[in-house]
Amino acid sequence: MAEPGQGQDAAGDEFALIAALFAPLATHPAARGLKDDAALWPLEGPTVMTCDAVVEGVHFLPDDPIETVAQKALRVNISDLAAKGAKPDGVLISLIWPQHRPAADIAGFAKGLAEDLAAFGCALLGGDMTSTPGPLTVSVMAFGRPYGGRSPARADAVPGQDLWVTGTIGDAVLGLAAAQGRLQASSEDAAFLVDRYRRPGARAAFAETVARHAGAAMDVSDGLIADARKLAAASGLALRLDPAAVPLSAAAGRILAAGGSTLAALMTGGDDYEILFTADPATAPALEAAAKAIGLRLTRIGETVAGQGVEALLPDGRDLGAEGGGFVHRLGA
Amino acid sequence: MAEPGQGQDAAGDEFALIAALFAPLATHPAARGLKDDAALWPLEGPTVMTCDAVVEGVHFLPDDPIETVAQKALRVNISDLAAKGAKPDGVLISLIWPQHRPAADIAGFAKGLAEDLAAFGCALLGGDMTSTPGPLTVSVMAFGRPYGGRSPARADAVPGQDLWVTGTIGDAVLGLAAAQGRLQASSEDAAFLVDRYRRPGARAAFAETVARHAGAAMDVSDGLIADARKLAAASGLALRLDPAAVPLSAAAGRILAAGGSTLAALMTGGDDYEILFTADPATAPALEAAAKAIGLRLTRIGETVAGQGVEALLPDGRDLGAEGGGFVHRLGA
Repeated sequence: MAEPGQGQDAAGDEFALIAALFAPLATHPAARGLKDDAALWPLEGPTVMTCDAVVEGVHFLPDDPIETVAQKALRVNISDLAAKGAKPDGVLISLIWPQHRPAADIAGFAKGLAEDLAAFGCALLGGDMTSTPGPLTVSVMAFGRPYGGRSPARADAVPGQDLWVTGTIGDAVLGLAAAQGRLQASSEDAAFLVDRYRRPGARAAFAETVARHAGAAMDVSDGLIADARKLAAASGLALRLDPAAVPLSAAAGRILAAGGSTLAALMTGGDDYEILFTADPATAPALEAAAKAIGLRLTRIGETVAGQGVEALLPDGRDLGAEGGGFVHRLGA
Repeated sequence: MAEPGQGQDAAGDEFALIAALFAPLATHPAARGLKDDAALWPLEGPTVMTCDAVVEGVHFLPDDPIETVAQKALRVNISDLAAKGAKPDGVLISLIWPQHRPAADIAGFAKGLAEDLAAFGCALLGGDMTSTPGPLTVSVMAFGRPYGGRSPARADAVPGQDLWVTGTIGDAVLGLAAAQGRLQASSEDAAFLVDRYRRPGARAAFAETVARHAGAAMDVSDGLIADARKLAAASGLALRLDPAAVPLSAAAGRILAAGGSTLAALMTGGDDYEILFTADPATAPALEAAAKAIGLRLTRIGETVAGQGVEALLPDGRDLGAEGGGFVHRLGA
């Protein structure tokens, strides 16, 4: 938004749109009202920075509500910050708008964005808007200060720690199937799961606890097993993960019970955006108390041991951790 | 690059590609070797942040060399920082790669990027890579500290200042025409102009002077006249601009002399990525000395006066500043 004029063709008069729709969201003085080429942020101390894009037809569906597209783009980045123990201080957004998509939809995008910026206490600092002959693409750069100045890396696990995960696993992959009409579910369950796909949790409220207590931490975006494997590799140890302990939502539980999916599919599906982390067993009471205080489900799903890779033994003896794969973002594939 | 796994379909094994191609470029400790979800930057003090995307078929041509695509994506952002008086400290990059473009081209992208990161002394801190069914899209977020802590805004001009511009104007719009086979020019001139379109100058070496002496400053990306209008509006004054003073390259001069373009077209064409700024007349000797020291052409093209808008009288009496328009990024339109 700080560089108006790029791609005015897509969105009519971009400059006017920015003024009308986005400038009211950019209330932090550092944003200069989105009227300049860049933001000037008074950063202090270590800052976590991350950047993730979402693409129509890859990370969201063409008929997803435009409000939730904005929210997903924002939340996948806030999720990264939360997993790194950081508060979401500010974002810059590249909005890459299809030439043939109605410019009127940009108002819905701004509305969804505004709601989430307020909910997460995050400043819109700038960005740009351009047109594309391709799909709607939103690239977000987010930054924030880690609580207490410490940001857990993927590599910070040591043997003898517990392995924890926030929220529930597998809702998003079921939600995607439901949105595509590929899932048998009650309309209530389908609505819940689709919303989990479109609007990931982004556990910002838990970031302070992560910064204080986590060994290694990362967010789960490519499937629990694939991401656990990355954490294990970065830390140079093995994760022993108990599939029976993996937390499922009531809706996901009903789908499983009805044979509509498998635990393996939920553990290798993607888009969960929960926080996977390790911690010293002595911190368990503090972790559980902190999660309870914010109404967040928190589940111990395994432990770190010497070795390498992930062990995840299913009831039938299959070791999910030894199998290949990991989530591939390609809708309808 | 800090969030591997998104869109592995596009680029084969993204994780391996990142390790092989981009991790060697991310030498700053804050980048965590691109092996984590986010970078941890030890920022202190005011920081300029900007974000601009380039899209195939909008900001660059499908057959532009992939090395220069990386360089253009980077330079349009470094240009923003330079115009704000800031050193390019670091970047995060969203690389949105077409599903049908050879993954082998990513090596060329990394090569072009590496050259420019080194040339500009800029750290690659992270980013992500995803696939798209659409055109190649590169979104870059860049940040840096303003020299002396001051970052000139568009709104910082006052009446009675000189109006300056770096480099030359109009090369890029001619270069685009040349690349599309729409321009009569010698092969040498065409090569020069095409390179100016593909690899904008990004006047980082002049950023310190801008921070020290500029009143208002911005980079020229949407055409000299359109951007001058923005500066005038933000500062609440008028710019009186002398078209005869607008600096042209020798190649552009030859095209004009041969009737291949018009001064009006060059002044309203886009993609110049030069710095437009105002300054107190007393600073002129210091400005000229600083530009000379780095071999940068610097030209006084007008002045600030009370009023509003831009006055730019062509020899035929037309006032270019009073006309509408401004550059629209849509190739082949």
